[in-house]
Amino acid sequence: MMNGMLSFGSDYMEGAHPEILQRLIETNMDQTAGYGLDEYSEAAREKIRKMCRAPHAEIHFLSGGTQVNRIVISALLRPYEGVIAADTGHITVHEAGAIECGGHKVLALPHTDGKLTARAIEECLRTFHEDANRDHMVRPGMVYLSHPTEYGTLYTMDELEVISAICRANRIPLFLDGARLAYALGCPANELTLPAIARLCDAFYIGGTKCGALFGEAVVFPKSDTVPHFFTIVKQSGALLAKGRVLGIQFDMLFTNGLYERGGAHAIAMADRIRAALTEKGYRLASDAPTNQIFLSLTPEQLAHLSAHVAMGFWEKQGDTTVMRIATSWATREEDVERLIALL
Amino acid sequence: MMNGMLSFGSDYMEGAHPEILQRLIETNMDQTAGYGLDEYSEAAREKIRKMCRAPHAEIHFLSGGTQVNRIVISALLRPYEGVIAADTGHITVHEAGAIECGGHKVLALPHTDGKLTARAIEECLRTFHEDANRDHMVRPGMVYLSHPTEYGTLYTMDELEVISAICRANRIPLFLDGARLAYALGCPANELTLPAIARLCDAFYIGGTKCGALFGEAVVFPKSDTVPHFFTIVKQSGALLAKGRVLGIQFDMLFTNGLYERGGAHAIAMADRIRAALTEKGYRLASDAPTNQIFLSLTPEQLAHLSAHVAMGFWEKQGDTTVMRIATSWATREEDVERLIALL
Amino acid sequence: MMNGMLSFGSDYMEGAHPEILQRLIETNMDQTAGYGLDEYSEAAREKIRKMCRAPHAEIHFLSGGTQVNRIVISALLRPYEGVIAADTGHITVHEAGAIECGGHKVLALPHTDGKLTARAIEECLRTFHEDANRDHMVRPGMVYLSHPTEYGTLYTMDELEVISAICRANRIPLFLDGARLAYALGCPANELTLPAIARLCDAFYIGGTKCGALFGEAVVFPKSDTVPHFFTIVKQSGALLAKGRVLGIQFDMLFTNGLYERGGAHAIAMADRIRAALTEKGYRLASDAPTNQIFLSLTPEQLAHLSAHVAMGFWEKQGDTTVMRIATSWATREEDVERLIALL
Amino acid sequence: MMNGMLSFGSDYMEGAHPEILQRLIETNMDQTAGYGLDEYSEAAREKIRKMCRAPHAEIHFLSGGTQVNRIVISALLRPYEGVIAADTGHITVHEAGAIECGGHKVLALPHTDGKLTARAIEECLRTFHEDANRDHMVRPGMVYLSHPTEYGTLYTMDELEVISAICRANRIPLFLDGARLAYALGCPANELTLPAIARLCDAFYIGGTKCGALFGEAVVFPKSDTVPHFFTIVKQSGALLAKGRVLGIQFDMLFTNGLYERGGAHAIAMADRIRAALTEKGYRLASDAPTNQIFLSLTPEQLAHLSAHVAMGFWEKQGDTTVMRIATSWATREEDVERLIALL
Repeated sequence: MMNGMLSFGSDYMEGAHPEILQRLIETNMDQTAGYGLDEYSEAAREKIRKMCRAPHAEIHFLSGGTQVNRIVISALLRPYEGVIAADTGHITVHEAGAIECGGHKVLALPHTDGKLTARAIEECLRTFHEDANRDHMVRPGMVYLSHPTEYGTLYTMDELEVISAICRANRIPLFLDGARLAYALGCPANELTLPAIARLCDAFYIGGTKCGALFGEAVVFPKSDTVPHFFTIVKQSGALLAKGRVLGIQFDMLFTNGLYERGGAHAIAMADRIRAALTEKGYRLASDAPTNQIFLSLTPEQLAHLSAHVAMGFWEKQGDTTVMRIATSWATREEDVERLIALL
Repeated sequence: MMNGMLSFGSDYMEGAHPEILQRLIETNMDQTAGYGLDEYSEAAREKIRKMCRAPHAEIHFLSGGTQVNRIVISALLRPYEGVIAADTGHITVHEAGAIECGGHKVLALPHTDGKLTARAIEECLRTFHEDANRDHMVRPGMVYLSHPTEYGTLYTMDELEVISAICRANRIPLFLDGARLAYALGCPANELTLPAIARLCDAFYIGGTKCGALFGEAVVFPKSDTVPHFFTIVKQSGALLAKGRVLGIQFDMLFTNGLYERGGAHAIAMADRIRAALTEKGYRLASDAPTNQIFLSLTPEQLAHLSAHVAMGFWEKQGDTTVMRIATSWATREEDVERLIALL
Repeated sequence: MMNGMLSFGSDYMEGAHPEILQRLIETNMDQTAGYGLDEYSEAAREKIRKMCRAPHAEIHFLSGGTQVNRIVISALLRPYEGVIAADTGHITVHEAGAIECGGHKVLALPHTDGKLTARAIEECLRTFHEDANRDHMVRPGMVYLSHPTEYGTLYTMDELEVISAICRANRIPLFLDGARLAYALGCPANELTLPAIARLCDAFYIGGTKCGALFGEAVVFPKSDTVPHFFTIVKQSGALLAKGRVLGIQFDMLFTNGLYERGGAHAIAMADRIRAALTEKGYRLASDAPTNQIFLSLTPEQLAHLSAHVAMGFWEKQGDTTVMRIATSWATREEDVERLIALL
Repeated sequence: MMNGMLSFGSDYMEGAHPEILQRLIETNMDQTAGYGLDEYSEAAREKIRKMCRAPHAEIHFLSGGTQVNRIVISALLRPYEGVIAADTGHITVHEAGAIECGGHKVLALPHTDGKLTARAIEECLRTFHEDANRDHMVRPGMVYLSHPTEYGTLYTMDELEVISAICRANRIPLFLDGARLAYALGCPANELTLPAIARLCDAFYIGGTKCGALFGEAVVFPKSDTVPHFFTIVKQSGALLAKGRVLGIQFDMLFTNGLYERGGAHAIAMADRIRAALTEKGYRLASDAPTNQIFLSLTPEQLAHLSAHVAMGFWEKQGDTTVMRIATSWATREEDVERLIALL
């Protein structure tokens, strides 16, 4: 809450799960090796391998989502290749050209509810391979998905199976951006488990920053040595923390006693309660996305009323109505939800 | 201490000043704006501006030294320019080619005790400008110094004044890497104050990672708008933390009640005590560097004896003797120093 | 003609104007300075300055269009900026990601007859500047036009004036790709003279490869020092020919006795004759573009008939009909045009 | 000859072998496919494959040496790798940072007469692999040699065999820059034949620009698919000529009737005659390099005398004496050699 306002503007407004801070204090004066070679980081890796049922997975802890996307995508592509992504994908719009700065074109395809469709991917690949000028064009070299998507939607198991099969048939890697993965895993509608993601993707990351950590993302390559010397690539990119333990300790805690899933489930419960109240009170939802992001179509009057009391995220104008985003998180307080509902 | 061994291997083996962790806990559930636009980050910036007597300074908080070096150097150079650095400089050797990956050559000059000399810089600039082929060569486009250097040595005020004057005469920026700046500021021999650095350099950073923070470096451009849209460059480089407050809070604490200087002074006091004991007991120092790094020339017997009890850093072989590095830090415990001295 | 087939597939199938080859022979054993510092290159530059009425223009000779586009665009943009182009622009589609490889996003806008509209550019700039997240997005940093466009169409004087005014109001450079500029200059419908282009653009190039040279493009910066040390950027990019004279001699000849304009006018005359015959014989043109490219909408029967005798370029399928491209050039033989017309 | 001066300043002052120009004229109005897919380019490739006894070699024609070096080196290295080269190597000094601009560090080793030694390469590799910090450092990822070197010297067969064996043992490619290869092949002292180079190197180029072509270099990968989609990399780098035939025709001629070797042998004969005269007349040679470059140590008087009549290249000052370079080429006229000798 800032200035008496309720704040549902985003899912990265607070610090971290208190258990994480507590653990940072307990371990603070331990002396460890640097650069993620410490025992905490290794313990976190081992827990992630188990949860993903990927005993040979190679795992690196990085600091943020754009950093992961830029480094992983560059590492997986050859210079003449681009990455297929939805035109609403985070890498397409909101990373300030990080992918292009790394040398690669984002091949943006029209989304369906924030998702890439197998059909669109196949069409892109087919069109490329049939084009007589293809050697003068950017080759589609990998596929990038977000789960949940930027629109809060979820891929079904069938959808991921088919997209994965297309990628393997075309020998291009599939990379899943899990910046908000806790809010998929905590959602009853979600079909994609960590083992399924690890089985179907060539790389993915488990988001920490938006899911209860101070900061940090866990990059998982289900097969070891997918990218040789990835450690050095991380170093060269300026993304290797000297005190890598700070990330390792956080992920170790997130995967102890189900903290990650609990945080996700809490956010979904809070979002569901808000969604129910909105529907009940006659508000119109712009999307039926089931995760921690709620998209409201507000009339000018509704907008004026709510904005006076609640910080929300602006999404877009649609004629007279304005779509605003409400986000819950692991940190959302029940009393804030009650106050929001009372305001509706 | 790992496995009963004393550990003096580096200055980034522990977590953070307890005051910092305490502050992270106190502020944990505050809701703030993201990306460093929060009030804690702004408070930290204001304190740094005051300490540097640079009221218009532009300050950005980043995560680590290689990240800062790569981003700042790329941002200050035109494509055909390179950065002058000592051949022992961190960017020259130990950043996995981060500068080159960003497109720029490191113009490595021979060091003197880990330092660049004004004479070497002038010679480099003169040689370039006199070369008839200079338009086919990399232009020296900026100067990079570390203070303290990788050898633990310190630039004098005179040295920095002269180097700064050369840079200004040649219209190329001067950038100072302060990864260990606390260990200069805490050292009686140090002549370079923050206001002096801010006056003489075009960019510098105040190291947090090695100086008491969990992680983080404060990049200071004494003149605002030195690099237009630096915020977006940081974002594009994958170096912008969503929860920028995590960095802001740390630097706010480091510059509250002299925490930064006290941490530095403690490390120097510990190092001085070790240096005195070493000399007294007939060990040979490979360098008279006065900061938190001690370089020992060890005979094979001395090496065998000490290595059995103390984790040190390997520096280099010099014939029969081996140079090892002992580093103290804000976190060094007096009892460990006593135990080390007893072992000598 | 290959294998008895008529060939109208592209405008770069032959060598060069015979006058150019003759001049290469005459000057062959002259000893000159390298890297474009020779007297022939300087003479060519002086002629171009005069024709453009831009006495201070800085002119560099490069080898090909993609090379020019990549180098000029990179040189004009800051790292976080992208280039606005039509979604049909050469840089958007057919340069294998050269612009992205250089670090920059192509901000592709919907075309109108192959052209960017002032309206679309303004909308793009306005949307960007109004977006609260703009500092997390690629900044529109310049505008790229082709004249003639990839669709053979021409900007009017009014259109270029308005686009130029928008760029100047937004302080972003305007760059015109003149790969086929001879076929605009030789076209009665064309309104854009060289002096107008030089007045309204910040950079442009006069195409040689498709307009009568063996290879080569003349990059013109109407204001000198638009890009400091552009010579070194060209060198660094691997685009500086040791025997720069080979380019200089060609452009010197192209701008002697109106060779460039004559080649262009010839191609247009040939294209006009074909267009008239097509219309007369009931063929459908897919576009009324007036330059050296003719786009035919062919029924399956027409396609089968023509393809048996004439090499054309495939453009696209539109349901049952197929759009094919016929290109004329400075080298098109009248007898081939007569044979083509006879075939229709 | 410029201004009555004799000119021996470099080996790229004239145009091309007259046979090449003649062939450009003969083929001028032929209509061919673009981008090097024409029959002339294919004929040239076939001749090169035969001469190299490398029937599966993949061959690409590019425009200049820096372009080749930048593209080939980037294509062969992973992001974290650097290229080992002599500190006198062309890529180290005179390519304006092209390699670094492409993202890679040049690992410059001390030369011996302009050559890399096997010992220096092994030491570099060994030191790297023994360094505990190697994952934070640039990996030596390939070796770059020039033959002849920038000092006009030649590798022996033994030397190349050993260097090749080291590279293969370390699984890093060996790349040979043959910008002046004709002047090795035409030199009696040369031991490296094209088949030997093709057998021992993973990539090399046969220089055209300095060896009788208007411009152009033939890049040879003895094994096909050494770099997948190299064609697209060339396109993306802006190095693909639309009229690739212009390069193909030139190399076709250079390898018809021994034109390439004859040009090389002529240059060596001229250089040998000059060397003999210099020795006879008491001039001191700064090097006994046997190819087309002659390095003279001149007293101030000798320098003043010669400079008044002969354009030479400045090499370096050595105390009182000045080292100047004289270069002969395929184009050097016997009468100019006689005049030079008369001047001595």
